[in-house]
Amino acid sequence: MAWSKEMPANPVVAVAGATGAVGREMLVCLEKLNFPASEVRLLASARSAGQKIPFAGCGQVPAGELTVQEMTEESFQGVDIALFSAGASISKKFRQAVVDAGAVMIDNSSAFRVDDDVPLVVPEVNAHDLAWHSGVIANPNCTTIQMVVALEPLRALGHIDRIVVSSYQSASGAGAKGMAELEDQIGKALAGQDFEPAAFAHQIAFNCIPHIDVFMEDGYTKEEWKMVVETKKIMGDPLVKVAPTCVRVPVLRCHSESINLEFDRPVDVEEAKKALANGVHVVLEDDPASNVYPMPALHAGSFDTFVGRVRRDPTVSGDRGLALWVVADQLLRGAALNAVMIAQELLPKA
Amino acid sequence: MAWSKEMPANPVVAVAGATGAVGREMLVCLEKLNFPASEVRLLASARSAGQKIPFAGCGQVPAGELTVQEMTEESFQGVDIALFSAGASISKKFRQAVVDAGAVMIDNSSAFRVDDDVPLVVPEVNAHDLAWHSGVIANPNCTTIQMVVALEPLRALGHIDRIVVSSYQSASGAGAKGMAELEDQIGKALAGQDFEPAAFAHQIAFNCIPHIDVFMEDGYTKEEWKMVVETKKIMGDPLVKVAPTCVRVPVLRCHSESINLEFDRPVDVEEAKKALANGVHVVLEDDPASNVYPMPALHAGSFDTFVGRVRRDPTVSGDRGLALWVVADQLLRGAALNAVMIAQELLPKA
Repeated sequence: MAWSKEMPANPVVAVAGATGAVGREMLVCLEKLNFPASEVRLLASARSAGQKIPFAGCGQVPAGELTVQEMTEESFQGVDIALFSAGASISKKFRQAVVDAGAVMIDNSSAFRVDDDVPLVVPEVNAHDLAWHSGVIANPNCTTIQMVVALEPLRALGHIDRIVVSSYQSASGAGAKGMAELEDQIGKALAGQDFEPAAFAHQIAFNCIPHIDVFMEDGYTKEEWKMVVETKKIMGDPLVKVAPTCVRVPVLRCHSESINLEFDRPVDVEEAKKALANGVHVVLEDDPASNVYPMPALHAGSFDTFVGRVRRDPTVSGDRGLALWVVADQLLRGAALNAVMIAQELLPKA
Repeated sequence: MAWSKEMPANPVVAVAGATGAVGREMLVCLEKLNFPASEVRLLASARSAGQKIPFAGCGQVPAGELTVQEMTEESFQGVDIALFSAGASISKKFRQAVVDAGAVMIDNSSAFRVDDDVPLVVPEVNAHDLAWHSGVIANPNCTTIQMVVALEPLRALGHIDRIVVSSYQSASGAGAKGMAELEDQIGKALAGQDFEPAAFAHQIAFNCIPHIDVFMEDGYTKEEWKMVVETKKIMGDPLVKVAPTCVRVPVLRCHSESINLEFDRPVDVEEAKKALANGVHVVLEDDPASNVYPMPALHAGSFDTFVGRVRRDPTVSGDRGLALWVVADQLLRGAALNAVMIAQELLPKA
């Protein structure tokens, strides 16, 4: 059953999980996109209630400080859009309260992503799927979002049959505590001091950990499984095959991805570059002769998805192979920004 | 023309580039393998001459200090085996002097790797190619060595048609200066101080740089090209297709590789694991349920090549796909150890 309630031009926006790494970036996105909110309500656990967060203002909300409120089932009265980034169990717990209050939930967790009645949306790829939401819209996983944004312009060249992807994921993918743990461990490692891993299964300083989220029976991690099923759902393409390996690296922010593509027909590198250069929210950063290619240290804070190292993969027969390297700020493009962009799509068309 | 000179049971060994990151590890390998040398002669540039390096002894060489000598064309008189790791131009400069002195050059640089009259050897894979050397034997590139060592046991399962590999290469791949630059930059980055990249094209602290060695016209780097041509030459298989992406990551030591394989026939994951567990100098480290998989922070100083995350790649038709994750100490396995293992192969058989 599709959603029938009309969205006001100036909605009341709740941010659930407002003090987390992604929640804070949601506020930044509301500010930067000047989202036409009539109110921005910050919600978090009782522990964070009372905390004051500076806000530059957006829409009808003036600049000033916003006070974090404890999230309860009553918190959603009068809310039109609830941006959730407080973990899957919290999303599940509050879903009914949000929907009962007549608000649309845009959920950054993995709670509902594969549910048949929940669209999984990256606006540049499948904004049309918002037409059939029934109160809950899921924000995809960060690694998937930046990949499908980068690949969208290339789909005009032919059907993408297969994607082999290896990720280089930053510590902030595990939230603010992941970033803090990397900085702390690196300091201790350089000083020769001991440390105990907490945010990650193993030491992250000066290390690569080929393990993100839990392991499943087939030897893949849940993070890798997400890339497979979410890519198919967002692209609306059950035939696209994805072979992922997800790896945590000692980078603070921005995920990188090494991608090998197989198309169903010959693709030309120059045409691929042209398509990427004209892609929506995609920046082609590809000038090897001048040592120009995307890197995570360059793009923290950016809304765009950066693509470089675009080259023919000659190991795919019939000139159907393409290789590329993709970098984006996963807290923004891969989470907060994507959620706020979905909220923008819900606004009444002018 | 094959080499006819007989190798003495206790050869005189020269180490050219003895003060570099790999040169120092060559000494460690001579010690640990108790190489039956009658003399170990350390050679380097005039700048390093006179430097004293502690040596634990090997063969007939007692423990003590070895004094670095300036390398000249006369340095190779009486030498039987010259281990070179001083850069391609130095190897080219001294090749004739080494051969004229009747020594065998085992060269770690890229100078002669693709020459038709120079075997490119990883002993576990193609020791038989040593039969046709004519005074010079090339040591492959580090990223290639650990990959072919890990893949060798799997070749019994079928022909490997295609390899898609993304690397996670440590700073010490750029020598001791690369490692020092990473430590220095990280300290400065954490303290908010400025720094100027020198060993790498860009900042390496908290970054991934998809650029190792120089770029070529086709958009691939020389490092990636090496993985393509060296793999074919070592495996003696012009048909194996390699699609590499080589990336520098902020790790001090040990390279990691994410590898997707396509065989010419169905492969079974359990059989693959069994083959790897029985592989020569390969350690299967694969117990996801206990968070066990290879990581670079674990294996600095190890002679072995570690393989984990072994799983089916279901995106290859006909059950022909396999994915895995490989870690090795690239200064040892990928350079110094491989060179000393080649030297061992040259010794007269008992």
